[in-house]
Amino acid sequence: MHMKAVGLMGHKYNPEIASTMTDVVEVLVRRGVKVLVDRSNPYVDSLEGIVPASTKEIGEHADLVIAVGGDGTLLGCARKLASYDVPILGVNRGKLGFLTDIVPGELETSISKILDGDYYEEERFLLDATLMRDGIEIANSQALNDVVLHPGQSVRMIEFEVFIDGQFVYSQSSDGLILATPTGSTAYSLSAGGPILHPSINAFVMVPMFPHGLTNRPIVVPASSELRIVIAKHNRTYPRVTCDGQSHAATQPGDELFVRQFKQPLKLLHPKTHNFYQICRSKLGWGSRLV
Amino acid sequence: MHMKAVGLMGHKYNPEIASTMTDVVEVLVRRGVKVLVDRSNPYVDSLEGIVPASTKEIGEHADLVIAVGGDGTLLGCARKLASYDVPILGVNRGKLGFLTDIVPGELETSISKILDGDYYEEERFLLDATLMRDGIEIANSQALNDVVLHPGQSVRMIEFEVFIDGQFVYSQSSDGLILATPTGSTAYSLSAGGPILHPSINAFVMVPMFPHGLTNRPIVVPASSELRIVIAKHNRTYPRVTCDGQSHAATQPGDELFVRQFKQPLKLLHPKTHNFYQICRSKLGWGSRLV
Amino acid sequence: MHMKAVGLMGHKYNPEIASTMTDVVEVLVRRGVKVLVDRSNPYVDSLEGIVPASTKEIGEHADLVIAVGGDGTLLGCARKLASYDVPILGVNRGKLGFLTDIVPGELETSISKILDGDYYEEERFLLDATLMRDGIEIANSQALNDVVLHPGQSVRMIEFEVFIDGQFVYSQSSDGLILATPTGSTAYSLSAGGPILHPSINAFVMVPMFPHGLTNRPIVVPASSELRIVIAKHNRTYPRVTCDGQSHAATQPGDELFVRQFKQPLKLLHPKTHNFYQICRSKLGWGSRLV
Amino acid sequence: MHMKAVGLMGHKYNPEIASTMTDVVEVLVRRGVKVLVDRSNPYVDSLEGIVPASTKEIGEHADLVIAVGGDGTLLGCARKLASYDVPILGVNRGKLGFLTDIVPGELETSISKILDGDYYEEERFLLDATLMRDGIEIANSQALNDVVLHPGQSVRMIEFEVFIDGQFVYSQSSDGLILATPTGSTAYSLSAGGPILHPSINAFVMVPMFPHGLTNRPIVVPASSELRIVIAKHNRTYPRVTCDGQSHAATQPGDELFVRQFKQPLKLLHPKTHNFYQICRSKLGWGSRLV
Repeated sequence: MHMKAVGLMGHKYNPEIASTMTDVVEVLVRRGVKVLVDRSNPYVDSLEGIVPASTKEIGEHADLVIAVGGDGTLLGCARKLASYDVPILGVNRGKLGFLTDIVPGELETSISKILDGDYYEEERFLLDATLMRDGIEIANSQALNDVVLHPGQSVRMIEFEVFIDGQFVYSQSSDGLILATPTGSTAYSLSAGGPILHPSINAFVMVPMFPHGLTNRPIVVPASSELRIVIAKHNRTYPRVTCDGQSHAATQPGDELFVRQFKQPLKLLHPKTHNFYQICRSKLGWGSRLV
Repeated sequence: MHMKAVGLMGHKYNPEIASTMTDVVEVLVRRGVKVLVDRSNPYVDSLEGIVPASTKEIGEHADLVIAVGGDGTLLGCARKLASYDVPILGVNRGKLGFLTDIVPGELETSISKILDGDYYEEERFLLDATLMRDGIEIANSQALNDVVLHPGQSVRMIEFEVFIDGQFVYSQSSDGLILATPTGSTAYSLSAGGPILHPSINAFVMVPMFPHGLTNRPIVVPASSELRIVIAKHNRTYPRVTCDGQSHAATQPGDELFVRQFKQPLKLLHPKTHNFYQICRSKLGWGSRLV
Repeated sequence: MHMKAVGLMGHKYNPEIASTMTDVVEVLVRRGVKVLVDRSNPYVDSLEGIVPASTKEIGEHADLVIAVGGDGTLLGCARKLASYDVPILGVNRGKLGFLTDIVPGELETSISKILDGDYYEEERFLLDATLMRDGIEIANSQALNDVVLHPGQSVRMIEFEVFIDGQFVYSQSSDGLILATPTGSTAYSLSAGGPILHPSINAFVMVPMFPHGLTNRPIVVPASSELRIVIAKHNRTYPRVTCDGQSHAATQPGDELFVRQFKQPLKLLHPKTHNFYQICRSKLGWGSRLV
Repeated sequence: MHMKAVGLMGHKYNPEIASTMTDVVEVLVRRGVKVLVDRSNPYVDSLEGIVPASTKEIGEHADLVIAVGGDGTLLGCARKLASYDVPILGVNRGKLGFLTDIVPGELETSISKILDGDYYEEERFLLDATLMRDGIEIANSQALNDVVLHPGQSVRMIEFEVFIDGQFVYSQSSDGLILATPTGSTAYSLSAGGPILHPSINAFVMVPMFPHGLTNRPIVVPASSELRIVIAKHNRTYPRVTCDGQSHAATQPGDELFVRQFKQPLKLLHPKTHNFYQICRSKLGWGSRLV
């Protein structure tokens, strides 16, 4: 792949991000690459030699999108660009992220290598969540990390039924349910007791949140599974559904939430030195080599 | 597949098993099927119309093996027959097992359907564990449920390093490590806080046992991963390795334990009504349908 | 204690409760006891031979209060009567509760024994939660089960600092914090991974909810501890505080939540056969005697 | 208390410990204190101006015992001196321990303050474990951290029944049971999912090890409880009992293990700046003050 046009998206309202974005633009311009910058970014006017563009234009014309910020910024880009076939590279302002593994100090070298085709490409899948009411679609969104059903402002447990591929799995009374992709398995799901899924695993994990029944445990199901969650009719609460922590929709008793793998995978680019276990070790404080 | 010869293996030294075995033989003989019975089974002489046979003969000549007993019995059969390409059907004496889902009350109907080809075939994989010392193989065994590294009679923590596909993962000080297949994810691993893996997931889970570091969590890795565990040189303990709970080998400081997917998958036959989630619900006491 | 006047409070809007209340009244009237019934109860007019009364009148004049309903009903009574020195007896409509251990079938015998002084009296403590803003008390409430700081309708983690007896304990980024009494340790706290505290333990447990840091664990602190939780100034969320699951108050960044043991203990009466471990075993499905 | 004689015990076979012991002796001798050194310590002959002594002599004559080493060393001293009424001070060679909170850098100042009576005294209790067979005592030992029933070299689950104060609690099939004091609650028990108990809590925690039943959770019971564990008669394993990780005794089917609070508490001295939560924060990596 010869990269002629690169899109640039960044975390908003953070001066340090703006500075890193400037550095990224310099590297790209020096390489003769056309740089399309997200028009809604507050720093777009301060960047020289770039072309302001919409998400749609970036998605359609860029050969690569560079997301500058933390893992949260990349999650946002990934959701916006989910339907376009453009790979994403994450540049982190500070320390390594799980998704954003280029740091400012090594910007020139790292980006040059990527432009030269010297990278490791990885596919990550997104979840697609659709809320149905009386057979009508109420809301639809994608998540790279997780779809979460949670009580919203209520302090009562939610009651719901879960079906997978048409088979009844269980009814549950709990604070909610986390459905996390391998990408999201090191985020919220991990705090909730979910397992870490290696990024190449083609499955997602269903983690109950404070279930009333003590025998409910995280279950890893094939990514091809179609999940249907039915909000019990007698709930007096209006649980909410979020995608990657963004509030998405309020459910009503009897609503059905469908969750399945999103049709279009995300392509993530990494330097060739990328090592998933090394990032886990660094971020989770696991033991290093014995002497 | 037309089944002309069926092997029969059973839990030993349990009169109720013997009675169920007799019933199974009757059904098979009535159908004109040749029945090969494990020669080492204590009840072999009391069964009429059968042919005593070695495990090798059963593995090579039977079109199907019926294991009578609990999940443990089927685990044993699976390990013995791991290298043969013969499917296994589990008949449970009492209540449903995760693996043995035909119960005595419905024996005739269920087995007849299986012989008629009216069944659901599922592949499960085994793990292959090899212990190496100074480059020499010390022991090798297979596990359908789990390979466990545990302290043996010592009461000290074990220290070891883990590598996956040549990449260093972590060093760990703990009581040991459970490596469970999807099949084993509902057994010992579950008690240790591991997730449930749907049987069709092509991955295994690595569950730390009481790790000294509180950030070590279960990790689900692709079944194609090659795991290497190095017993730290300064250990003053001699951790043991077990396969499916059977004591297997004692390690020495510096030993390397290699664990990978076994080359030959196990074929499990089930009645067409088989439903993994229903068995979970029944065995783990999950909530049933809401009214 | 000679019981001349008994207060009666019950779960509202449930016909079966009304029927049990009628039975309780009959037993009490037959014994010549004056029965004060909560004036706000919808069934008060249908009960014969009783005296409608306010909570204050019941608290001041009754020698015993009988709460009819589930554990939740008793929690409500306990909070309302927290400042009065009157013991409570729980009558459960259906199966045994942790707090309500008299069941309809044995009403006459059980209540008679209690009136005869043949009972086991137990003290349980409540937590007292006070929310302070700029040095001014915003809200105050009591909890027999738990005080919970939770995100409310937000889907972001809360950041806060915890101090015990003036000593800094930790800062935490999580979904919130559960502070559970021994009484509450078998309720919500248990779902969140908290330990069971025997009712006679004079301590409460602080259980982090999905903490971002994986090393935060439940901590059991002496009941005499004064807990101060400071909502971080930079929070963009307005976490809520609940007492026994009742929404109580919304916090603002910088608010301080003080939690301490409530000055007045609750007296719970039980039949002499009451056995805490037996109730755990029955409600949690623990293993029974081996044969 | 005027301290005229101080006992000195240390971790064995570690040259750095010997060096710290020498420093401690110098401080004590300079203060005119008589120093009794554990006769069995390998470094006793290299220390000048001291009196070699037996554990008994130290226990009876010393006004204070200084344990030099890590928490494990102090555990050993505490068990040896359990029956004597002598306070213990822990000096750690390297970083802070939970029990040994004087570090070499501040030796002179810290020990002087202690000798001047400027300290904080804390009582910790030990557990007393007695193994009975057919009514005869087989073994007895004490533990400051924990009494653990574990499978020994077997790989099978243990089956046992637990009684508290004569009341049946549950039967359990698991890898064993950890009974941890507040002191031990930050050690092995924490790895096994047990809660942290503040040192002043007069209770111990019973933590099931990988229980077969998923509803078994840690239970905190009053320190006055008498625990009786009955090893099931049909066990084919010989579980072991350890006190503070030291192998203690092998049980037989039908054996009874009694665990209760040891009659004599341990007095631990700390600098006045001692802060339990600060040590937790430092050792467990909890979040520090927000800015």
